[in-house]
Amino acid sequence: MARYLTRHDAVAMDRADDLAGLRGEFFLPEGVIYLDGNSLGALPKATAPRLIDVIEQEWGHGLIRSWNVHGWVDLPLQAGAAIAQFVGADSDEVVVTDSISVNIFKLLVAALRLRPGRTVVVSELDNFPSDLYMVQGLADLLQGRVQLRVVRRDQLAQAIDENVAVVMLSHVDFRTGELHDMATWTAVTHQAGSIALWDVAHSVGVVPIELHACDVDFAVGCGYKFLNGGPGAPSFVYAARRLHEDLQQPLWGWFGHAAPFQFGLGYNPAPGIARFQVGTPPVLSLAALASGVEVLARVGVERLRAKSMALTDLFIRLMEQECAGLGFELASPLAPERRGSHVAYRHAQAHPIAQALIARDIIPDFRAPDLLRFGLAPAYLRFIEVWDAVTCLREIVDDRLWDNDEYRRRHKVT
Amino acid sequence: MARYLTRHDAVAMDRADDLAGLRGEFFLPEGVIYLDGNSLGALPKATAPRLIDVIEQEWGHGLIRSWNVHGWVDLPLQAGAAIAQFVGADSDEVVVTDSISVNIFKLLVAALRLRPGRTVVVSELDNFPSDLYMVQGLADLLQGRVQLRVVRRDQLAQAIDENVAVVMLSHVDFRTGELHDMATWTAVTHQAGSIALWDVAHSVGVVPIELHACDVDFAVGCGYKFLNGGPGAPSFVYAARRLHEDLQQPLWGWFGHAAPFQFGLGYNPAPGIARFQVGTPPVLSLAALASGVEVLARVGVERLRAKSMALTDLFIRLMEQECAGLGFELASPLAPERRGSHVAYRHAQAHPIAQALIARDIIPDFRAPDLLRFGLAPAYLRFIEVWDAVTCLREIVDDRLWDNDEYRRRHKVT
Repeated sequence: MARYLTRHDAVAMDRADDLAGLRGEFFLPEGVIYLDGNSLGALPKATAPRLIDVIEQEWGHGLIRSWNVHGWVDLPLQAGAAIAQFVGADSDEVVVTDSISVNIFKLLVAALRLRPGRTVVVSELDNFPSDLYMVQGLADLLQGRVQLRVVRRDQLAQAIDENVAVVMLSHVDFRTGELHDMATWTAVTHQAGSIALWDVAHSVGVVPIELHACDVDFAVGCGYKFLNGGPGAPSFVYAARRLHEDLQQPLWGWFGHAAPFQFGLGYNPAPGIARFQVGTPPVLSLAALASGVEVLARVGVERLRAKSMALTDLFIRLMEQECAGLGFELASPLAPERRGSHVAYRHAQAHPIAQALIARDIIPDFRAPDLLRFGLAPAYLRFIEVWDAVTCLREIVDDRLWDNDEYRRRHKVT
Repeated sequence: MARYLTRHDAVAMDRADDLAGLRGEFFLPEGVIYLDGNSLGALPKATAPRLIDVIEQEWGHGLIRSWNVHGWVDLPLQAGAAIAQFVGADSDEVVVTDSISVNIFKLLVAALRLRPGRTVVVSELDNFPSDLYMVQGLADLLQGRVQLRVVRRDQLAQAIDENVAVVMLSHVDFRTGELHDMATWTAVTHQAGSIALWDVAHSVGVVPIELHACDVDFAVGCGYKFLNGGPGAPSFVYAARRLHEDLQQPLWGWFGHAAPFQFGLGYNPAPGIARFQVGTPPVLSLAALASGVEVLARVGVERLRAKSMALTDLFIRLMEQECAGLGFELASPLAPERRGSHVAYRHAQAHPIAQALIARDIIPDFRAPDLLRFGLAPAYLRFIEVWDAVTCLREIVDDRLWDNDEYRRRHKVT
């Protein structure tokens, strides 16, 4: 059994934290303990000035000329190149465009074309539902040319057979924070002759991702979680260069065209990853995402990962120490190397507990029916905040605050 | 023949312009005459402060809570409702989401479902190429279930037969500025039992659009042109309410789900127009678009249309007066009611002329091989700027500036 932890231990961990200075790059509201950076990352201080510059100088003064003069036209590939370093890819294998859902649609079709005759998309019951919905929509559209085969993780190996065109998995489980074994499952996928499509929404920026080393075919990821790109930031697409020549995605927009400003009658895809673009790029959102990525790029993902594991480890140890017997059940893996950057607990009163925490300016995330998620973003979270959050959690549950009418009324707990 | 126009006439038109004050709501760079608001609208002065508020207060302070507290989740429908007034639609028939190209893809599939057994999409050779590419991509994906039939305008009537599922037309021709007769062609489309899909990218905000009165089924439009929503602003989708119950679009993302935060395994579309959403809405871009729309909403599209016709009319009359015999051929209709808000001229030296204008801070738009477009945004353009632009144009062509090596070197004309 580990030794008893005190508040002083958390303070000491902050003092020893070589990433402590990075918090200064972010705006965090006074008095708030933010444990939901896995849903929406915090605001980098550089982002508002950057956006003002893009709006006032580039758009206001430069007007239409800024597509060339300020390189707006290159932003999707530039932002992609910046993200590539977080996912173990080359700079010409990633592009920022559209949403994760739309990008999954493109990649599913591209994968089906690479595996003619195969019709099955395998995924997990616990995958992010929107990823599954996109397969369902495609299956509905293609009338029998695609089926979704969705299984539990322990059935995954036997589900990947010679009919499978694509295996679509999430690197980090959005509920439990469990990290999938990308190398192993990509190898299993390839042994069956299938295409591996990974959703790295919950891992990019906090877990080193090795798309090349794992020989991953396709990936998508999220700009607004740990990359701190802002609410609704665009998504990114990765495709391994070895596949670039044969790639065909179905959304043939002018920004994926080899020569959009020739306004030719026929579609002719741009070389490489650029063909995953569709419509006109969202310049303001791209600038905000680039700003978020720059902050993390200064320290690199290895150091972020080390702090992330220390944060989730402290959280779990403190929960054992402070909240044992209070009805919490850890939903995340115990081994730090098997976790992403959030930890999750089941509790019969998860919803009122989340409400009570929020009323005290501690912001977790609730997922129905009984899950509390605590996102521990290493770029800006302090160890002392983990201490404060867990002790507050104990207090709330000790006092059964959700049973106290006066408390509920005062804090508008519903 | 109209009487000779002088510079004083243009000044007098500005004095009499009841929309002159609206220019003060926009930032326009000193000394620049901006004739490309049809490609990228100018910056409303309210937009930077609005974005700063969204970034610093809503994102920075509110963090994840702002999805509810600041109503981010409602922005796509709110922005849609604001745009509805410009297109003759009800507030629950429009939603802002994705790009025009992606939205065309959704609507094409929705239309094909409404017309089972029909496979043809009719459009025009002169339609915006990206719209045509989207049909080509869908045809490629659906292998024979869709064909694109693309014809000249004079062949349009005979192309619309009983095999046609969708007729997809642009309200304003992106090259010539010619306004299509929405009522007539929608009626012709319906007589053949087909679905009418209109792209109003170049008309929304400057031409009163009567989607209801014309009984239009589907429409898409652009946020970054005359709505001044900023570079790469998201697009909007319109679907007539009479069709809402039967609508099914193929991109099944969580924001188009009836209950996205229940994270159910199966897709269940949201009621009404909301189901056209896919991924997480781009909050920053939506806020910028809403800011642009608000400025125009204060004056209404009828007054904008009146000034727009006066601007294009003045431009054409001045071109006749100042530039006759200089090789310009009007590509736009002469009758003001048949034009959108830009005028276009063909000229053998169109490219060097555009470069020479830009070197003098007059910004038109060049479309290969020989077209000059002059976008005349009624919200911020002055009549005197039309005078100055046309007289400058005459000077450039009179002097054959593109033949003058010294001029080309000094102004970096290539």
